[in-house]
Order: sequence, then structure tokens, then C-alpha cells
Amino acid sequence: MSDVIGGQVGLDDLPLRDDLRGRSPYGAPQLQVPVALNTNENPFPPPAALVDDVATATREAAASLHRYPDRDHVALRTALAEYLTKATGVALAPENLWAANGSNEVLQQLLQAFGGPGRLALGFEPSYSMHPILAAGTRTDWLPAPRRDDFSLDAAAAVDVVRERRPDVLFVTTPNNPTGQSIELDELAAIADAAPGIVVVDEAYVEFSSGPSAVELLATHPHRLVVSRTMSKAFAFAGGRLGYLAAAPAVVDALMLVRLPYHLSSLTQAAALAALRHADETLALVDTLARERDRIAAALTDLGYAVVPSTANFLLFGGLPHPDAHATWQAYLDAGVLIRDVGIPGHLRVTVGTPAENDRFLEVSAALRQA
Amino acid sequence: MSDVIGGQVGLDDLPLRDDLRGRSPYGAPQLQVPVALNTNENPFPPPAALVDDVATATREAAASLHRYPDRDHVALRTALAEYLTKATGVALAPENLWAANGSNEVLQQLLQAFGGPGRLALGFEPSYSMHPILAAGTRTDWLPAPRRDDFSLDAAAAVDVVRERRPDVLFVTTPNNPTGQSIELDELAAIADAAPGIVVVDEAYVEFSSGPSAVELLATHPHRLVVSRTMSKAFAFAGGRLGYLAAAPAVVDALMLVRLPYHLSSLTQAAALAALRHADETLALVDTLARERDRIAAALTDLGYAVVPSTANFLLFGGLPHPDAHATWQAYLDAGVLIRDVGIPGHLRVTVGTPAENDRFLEVSAALRQA
Repeated sequence: MSDVIGGQVGLDDLPLRDDLRGRSPYGAPQLQVPVALNTNENPFPPPAALVDDVATATREAAASLHRYPDRDHVALRTALAEYLTKATGVALAPENLWAANGSNEVLQQLLQAFGGPGRLALGFEPSYSMHPILAAGTRTDWLPAPRRDDFSLDAAAAVDVVRERRPDVLFVTTPNNPTGQSIELDELAAIADAAPGIVVVDEAYVEFSSGPSAVELLATHPHRLVVSRTMSKAFAFAGGRLGYLAAAPAVVDALMLVRLPYHLSSLTQAAALAALRHADETLALVDTLARERDRIAAALTDLGYAVVPSTANFLLFGGLPHPDAHATWQAYLDAGVLIRDVGIPGHLRVTVGTPAENDRFLEVSAALRQA
Repeated sequence: MSDVIGGQVGLDDLPLRDDLRGRSPYGAPQLQVPVALNTNENPFPPPAALVDDVATATREAAASLHRYPDRDHVALRTALAEYLTKATGVALAPENLWAANGSNEVLQQLLQAFGGPGRLALGFEPSYSMHPILAAGTRTDWLPAPRRDDFSLDAAAAVDVVRERRPDVLFVTTPNNPTGQSIELDELAAIADAAPGIVVVDEAYVEFSSGPSAVELLATHPHRLVVSRTMSKAFAFAGGRLGYLAAAPAVVDALMLVRLPYHLSSLTQAAALAALRHADETLALVDTLARERDRIAAALTDLGYAVVPSTANFLLFGGLPHPDAHATWQAYLDAGVLIRDVGIPGHLRVTVGTPAENDRFLEVSAALRQA
């Protein structure tokens, strides 16, 4: 890189924060492969009618690109409230909703408002690996608490650790990524009752489960509970970057103190509104994915793999033919199937793809077993 | 709000960080008025060909919305490097460029990497009011240093304060918002030579000035210098939210450690690429705005106002008919003209609008003088 301006400067030559030295950027490899089942994307492209509607909406928005967007994205929050009301049966108002560029930004804003230096965030690991990274990025101390050996959450133990460690921000991921299990609402309520701080229920994958949403607990736990969601997965909108939350209006007021002004572009707002108008169509494919998930789980089990029960659009599985998970990951990749090594010894995670992609994954899984 | 779920909860009932208590969200009032000259937007809508190109590009991107965007936005950084190379004559590579959702997010990422708790950021006030807010949001200490009474930057005094206080992050806004003046490159080089930390040159309004860009100093100051820019103003792309920077590749490597993964949506990347393809067309209107700025400045001066010399698309002016700037701001608003009270006693800021908008602003300015 010596011919690039400034190419002679290395990261160590810069006055980088000490806690960032030696770290690597977060992110799955973005590789071109025949079958990509590594980032829990929805494998079905948006329906043609949705694409048309997004195109029309963004064209309209483009004519006013010289103006700043609605800072408080009221129209979008109204549409999200309507969707969530319909999905959960809980009557939410626009004041209960807030959106940002992906749920990562929503979670970062929550940590800026309720975490930060001298404060503690707690999560039950293994879980979404961005939670501790976002805590570090906002200088919030991070305390990992364990799950059971089968990766399910022991609610009684969770209550105990929350009472003892008193986190300012508590993360509960349900369905949990990368393991797949959901937690029951009464267990979640018990944990929230014990929590002294904000309880963030990360429901990024909830549409793939048949269980109820933590939104049902907002009326009884408005001082504590925040339910975080995303349009990336069930809505097949990962490229659009739209995360949101439901909470008491005061939580939204708090986020307005830390959000970057005009954080959501007018194109994002218009496109997300268009995608929400096609919710029924998109979400219909969720059932297909849930059925495919159950089919893969059964087939993997038949092949002798140990599959963790999942209510999401991915499966964590062990019982690998090679004790080194990364070597097995590489063997899948060599066969053109990209899955995810999430750092759990002896386990890998596969995203549910199209039926053809899943067939190919199962073919490779069978071949690796026989190799 | 008592009928909204959680509406009984107030901000004081939440475990908000103490330093956020009592604060108000940043942001100019978003009012519907005949003439809005308050947020330094470009008054000219994007040309029809640009709107068409954005629509085509976002339609194409919409077909793959189920997939995550290119996390490193390589195509966009390549196009930004080409634009900046053409604009400045300095041969930049894609590795020198980085973009985010508005320059606010770029600056926040810089403070996350090079500022934070126990570190100091310094700026010369009055300047862009988001700089101290972003410092607070990243828990970076903020030290305001003065400008001259006429709001120009005293480079020798700046060198002294930088040597004495040794900020980890130094902000130099040129042209300065909200006052309008630019700093000479040799003065900037002297300040950068004295700086022990990162020097962020905020060039949000540089296309409206006739002076050179700090990009010309990157080759001699690669360890320190970062040049921040935006497509919001000259590119008439405020609604699209695209800020970017030019720096040594190692600075970009540092930002990859703190950026949220997939922070730039595929729609944003596609739309910004389309807008860059029409740079010549959009930037041609910048000359019109610069001429209008000079016309308004002359007319305001003739009316007895005291106008601060500006190289941007706005003017700060004093000599108000009423000593209370906010009362004068309200008088403009009552006449249908929304300008900005930036908190400088005895001064207001007006954005350069269309010729007709500027005529109306001058009419009201004349009427207020005679009232």
C-alpha cells in the first residue's frame, strides 16, 4: 500500500484507544459461494410487488433529497406500531416505537442512554456476539452469565445473578442467537421483576417462533422493559437496515437525547414503509422457513449430528465428524457451502436457506459424516 | 399520554445516565413555513436525471434487500475517491475513503476510536454544535477554545492552546459553521504540526468556498489529519445521509474496529453512487448559491446589518434591530421566514435559499429594520 497516500502509516502509529489495540473488526467473511447460509438472512428475495413499491417510494423520496428527513420518523413509527399491534395483539402507539439503522444502532443508543462508563451490562452467553461489542463501544462494563450446558436459559439462576450483580442493562435474546431456544413469558417476567435496570429483550428472530412476544409484558413492566426487533430477518430487509424497539414513551424520549440527528435517511424511511405495506406477503414465507428448519433438524439428527432445538431461522449443531469445528466449517466451505463458526467448541451454525440450498447443505453434511 | 402503554412512566422514572438528565434533544425546530432557511440545506431539488438514476439504482438494490449490504462499501468508496481526486487534484485511493450515515456518524466513529473516557477533544467556538454533543455521547472530555471577536480563527493562538492542552482529537471546521470563515492551508498545517492527536478538519461546506481543501495536506500529515465531508449540502443529498472522510488507510482500519457492522444500507450505497454520477450537474448550482450569498451579504450590509464574511452557503449577521436575537428570530418566523438562532448573542444565521426565498428574506429584513 506504499503508493497510496498515507499508506506508510500503520494502525500502531495512530493514537488509537488502548482497548482497541490488537482487536479485529466484527463480521462474518463476505465470500462469494454457491450456498451462503452464514448470516441468518432470509433466502427469499423480496416479492416483485414489494420491489415495485420500494422503487416507487424511493423515487418519490428522491425528489426531496435536498431536504433533511423527518428526524423523528413519525410515519414509520406509526406503521411499525400498527404492524406490532397486529402481530402481538397489544395496542401500541407511535410513541411506543423507535427505529434506527439496524437493531445494532438501536442497541447502541440504549447503551448510550442507560449504560456507559461505570455501568454494567449483563448477558447470558453464548448469545448475540454484538451485545458485548456494543457494550465495549459505549465503554459499558460487560458481565457474561452462563446458560445451561444445553444452551437453554435457567430462569431461576438468571434471577439470582441479576439480583446479585444488579446490571444497569440486561440483555435477554429470545429466540437466542446462535443457539435457537426461546424463553417463556412468565420466566421473562420473573427476570424483569428482579432487574434493577433496563431489560432489553432482543427478539430479532421472534417471527420464526410460535411463542408470544415480550411486547405482552410492556403494560406490566413499562419502567424496565424494552423489546428490540429487526426487519432484517423475517421481513427479508437485511439490506435496508431497519431495527426498531417497543417500550414506554419515556424510553423513546431518552433515546432522543443520544441519537444522531437525522439518523434515518428519507430513503430508508420510505423503503421501510413500503416493505411494511407488504408484511403479509413477506411473513407468509416465514412458515416455509420454519418448516424447512424442522426438516433440516430431523435430517441432521438422522445423520448422527446433535441438533440444538431452534425456534429461529437457524440451527446450532454439534456431533461433528471432526472435533475441530473450524476444520469442519472449512470442509463445508470447500464443498461450496458457507456456514458459521460462532466460536462454540464442537458446534457450527447453519442458516435455513431455500429448499434447494438446504438439500445441498444436507448432502454435504452426509458426505462429511461418511468421509 | 396516560392511555398509551407505559405512558405513566416519566424520564425521571428511568435509570437514565446522570449526565443526560435535564438535557434536551439536539435539533432545529422542524416547522412548516413558506421559507425555510434554517438548516443549511441546498434549496435546489435534485435534477430530474439524478432522481431517475437514484430510482433505477434503488430499484436494482431493492431486489436484493434480503441480503446484507457490502459491509465495507467498496464501490461507494471508489466513487468517492474518484470525486475527491477530481475536486482536489490529490490522487486518493478507495483505501483513503470511509463513509457513514451522515458526517455525524463519521465523527462519532472517530471519537469512539481516538477519543472516549479519559481523552480530550478540543474545538474553536462558536462552531458546529454537534462536535461537543458527539464528544459527550462518546464520553470524551470537551474543551472549547476561543475564536477572535470577529469569529475568525487566530492560528497562532490555536497552536498555543493545542501545544498546551494536547487534545487527543482536535476539530477545525472550515468553512466554519455557523460563522462562515475559512482557514488558510499554511495555518492549518501549523496547527496540525502542533497537534499530538488526530486533527479532524470538518469541510462540510467546502464546496461553497473557492479555497483549497485540507486534502492537500494528507500527504504531508498522514499520521494526524482526517478530512470530513458530507453530501448533504453541495450535493443536495441531506435526505440521503451520506458523510465521508479522507485519511490515511490506517485511520480507516481504526474505524472498522468501532463501526456498527453493515452500517450503510444497500439503498444508501446505491443512491449515493447515483448522486455521485451527477456531481457535475449538482455542483454547477453551487456557483449560483455562492453568488446569491454574496448578494444577500451586500444587501444586508446596505440595510445596516453587520454581516460576518462567509465562504459557505449561509451567513451569520448581527446589528439586529432588537438586541434580543431570539425576539428577532421570532419576528422573521412570524413573517413566514424560518432562520436559525444559533445561540450567539445578537446574531442570527440564514441559509442561502433560492433567489425568490432570498428576496423574501431581504424584504423581511428591511421591514424589521424599519419597524
